[in-house]
Order: sequence, then structure tokens, then C-alpha cells
Amino acid sequence: MHYLVGDNMHVQSISRKDLNSIQSRKNMDKELQVILSLFKGKRKLLHYYLAGFIDGEGSFSVAIIKHPMQKFGWMINPCFQVYQHQKHREILEVCKYVFGTGSIYRKSGIHPVLNFSIDSRRNIIEKVIPFFDSIPLITKQETYKKFREIVMMMEKKEHLTKEGFKKIVCIAYTMNQQGKGRKHPMEYILSNMS
Amino acid sequence: MHYLVGDNMHVQSISRKDLNSIQSRKNMDKELQVILSLFKGKRKLLHYYLAGFIDGEGSFSVAIIKHPMQKFGWMINPCFQVYQHQKHREILEVCKYVFGTGSIYRKSGIHPVLNFSIDSRRNIIEKVIPFFDSIPLITKQETYKKFREIVMMMEKKEHLTKEGFKKIVCIAYTMNQQGKGRKHPMEYILSNMS
Repeated sequence: MHYLVGDNMHVQSISRKDLNSIQSRKNMDKELQVILSLFKGKRKLLHYYLAGFIDGEGSFSVAIIKHPMQKFGWMINPCFQVYQHQKHREILEVCKYVFGTGSIYRKSGIHPVLNFSIDSRRNIIEKVIPFFDSIPLITKQETYKKFREIVMMMEKKEHLTKEGFKKIVCIAYTMNQQGKGRKHPMEYILSNMS
Repeated sequence: MHYLVGDNMHVQSISRKDLNSIQSRKNMDKELQVILSLFKGKRKLLHYYLAGFIDGEGSFSVAIIKHPMQKFGWMINPCFQVYQHQKHREILEVCKYVFGTGSIYRKSGIHPVLNFSIDSRRNIIEKVIPFFDSIPLITKQETYKKFREIVMMMEKKEHLTKEGFKKIVCIAYTMNQQGKGRKHPMEYILSNMS
């Protein structure tokens, strides 16, 4: 058992696991500072670097999930993500620092892969879109444009109209390998709108 | 059958396959020009972008291959590569343009993956090393440093001494998942030097 003394001298017991977690957090902060120092005075270059990295390891996706409480019975979830093996968490910390938002968590499954994710529509509009509007992507430009179009349509509440909803579903199904790997065929969604 | 008339009016027959290949080459050149125009006047930003992309999708490797004609019976092959699905060949063409050298070819195997590769030691020294010496990598910095060290040792012909050869093998086996996926264990190489 270890003790942590706070500013107000309140003594709190913390476990070995918590202690490891604090240590690991400290090391990661240090690692992030080292990386940022490599790009000191080169903010724009860091952003281009990160855009290139994301062009390889990132994804712009729009999930469409059955949800009885949502309009038409389906929830539309745009999400920006970056994946990386857990041994290189530092690059995801750089993403979090640059975008000023987002969560890092372990992906489910057997592979030790971490996921940096921004899925709040507000943050996508305020942080993700301005970033990729200012830096061209090479391999993912087309997918990004579709993602952007859907998010902006939702911002204008077009997904709450039947026509807008259908248009979003159609665009979403042309992204990322034409709907391959999705749970439902597009026709199923369009013919099961409540 | 189609005919291509050259400058000297020499008429040469070309097949449908050749014609498709010329067309596809022309389209790719056009696509490359479009990408380069996005980065017009931003050469440094393009280089950082590409470095970020390579940090995700590239590799620095040193193969050690049995070869009876080589000193100690083993050939040391440093190679810089970038992988991409064949539908995004354009990013590999950007690599080829920026490095001013390298080959793009289809990887063996069932997956439609292309490989951009620079394996000539001269080109690695003159094109690859100056590029990555001027731009910091985030996830692959450690691997790049080892790769660089081996290439520079070879440049000084240290691989032709027993001690230098052994040192190179030891460094190579600490790269890219500590020799995982290699054909021979490190000990096998070190104890089978001719």
C-alpha cells in the first residue's frame, strides 16, 4: 500500500496498479513533450506530418446503428479515428494534443491496438473539419469529403427529414469499400425506416 | 492491332495490353500532377506530410540472406519500403517523385498491395538518409536510426570484417519486432559464417 499526499494534506491510499498508472501517465507526458520539442516552432509542419500519418492510419467513418429512440429508428454516427499498436501510443497522444480533444482506448479484439477517436459532432465540426479543410489528404480525400458532407448535412438537421436521411445513408454506403463489412445492406436500412 | 508513330515516323505495332498500360500511365501522371499542384509552393510541407505517411505505412528493414558468393556466406540487404493498396498507387508515385528514385511493384501474395522500394545502397545514402535526417519520425525513429547505422557501417565496409558483420546482424535483429518473422534465428547466422 502506498500513500499520496495532496495539496490539502489529505492522505489517500492508492494501489500498486494506480501507482503504475500514474507512472505510465508521467512517462507518456514526458514522451509527448520530447516529440513536441522536435517540432518546436514548426506547428504547421507537425500538422502536415500528422495529416500524412492519418492518411495512412486514420479513418473517417459513418456508422448507422439500429436505435428505436432515434428518428426513423436509426442512429447516424460520424467518427474520426486513428489506430496504432499500443507500443506507439505516443503518436495518438500527439493527435490528442493537436486536435485538443478525443479519447484513446484499447480496441476490442485480440490485437493490442489502440484507437484515438473523436465522435462528438461538435468536436468534429470545430476541430476535425477545420484541420482537414486546411491540409489536403492524398489517399483519403474522397472519403473525407463524403464524411464532411454528411456531418454538415446533420448540422443543418437534414438527417431528420426522410429525404436527407436517405441521402446520408446512400453517401455513407459509398465510403470505405462501398459498405463492405457493414452489418446491414443499404436496402435493409432504407426499407426499415420507422 | 494499333500503331504508334514515333518522331522518326517508325511505325511500330502495339498490343491492346500495351495501349492500356500507356493509358493507365498517362492517367497516373495526370493524378500525380493534381496531387503535386495541391502542394505547389509547399515542398517542405509535402515532405513532412510524406514523412508522416511513411511513419505509418513505411518500413526500414535489413534482410540477411544466405549467399555463398558473399563474404561470410551471407548477404546484407538494407531496404526502404512503403506499402499501399493498389487502388492508391498515387501516393507511391508521390514517394517516387519526392525521392527521385525507387521502384513500384506488386507484392507477391493474394492481397492487391503495391510496394515502393529503394534498395540500392547508393540511393539509400543519397536520397533516403538525407530525407529522414532532416525530418523527425515519431513511431519509427528508433528503427530508422538502426537502419542508418547499418547502412553507414556498410558504407565504411565494416560488414566485411568479422566483428562488423556480427555487429550488423545483432543490430538488425533488434529491429522490427526483434527478428520475429525472420527465416533464421540470429544464432544460426552467427554460427554459420563461412
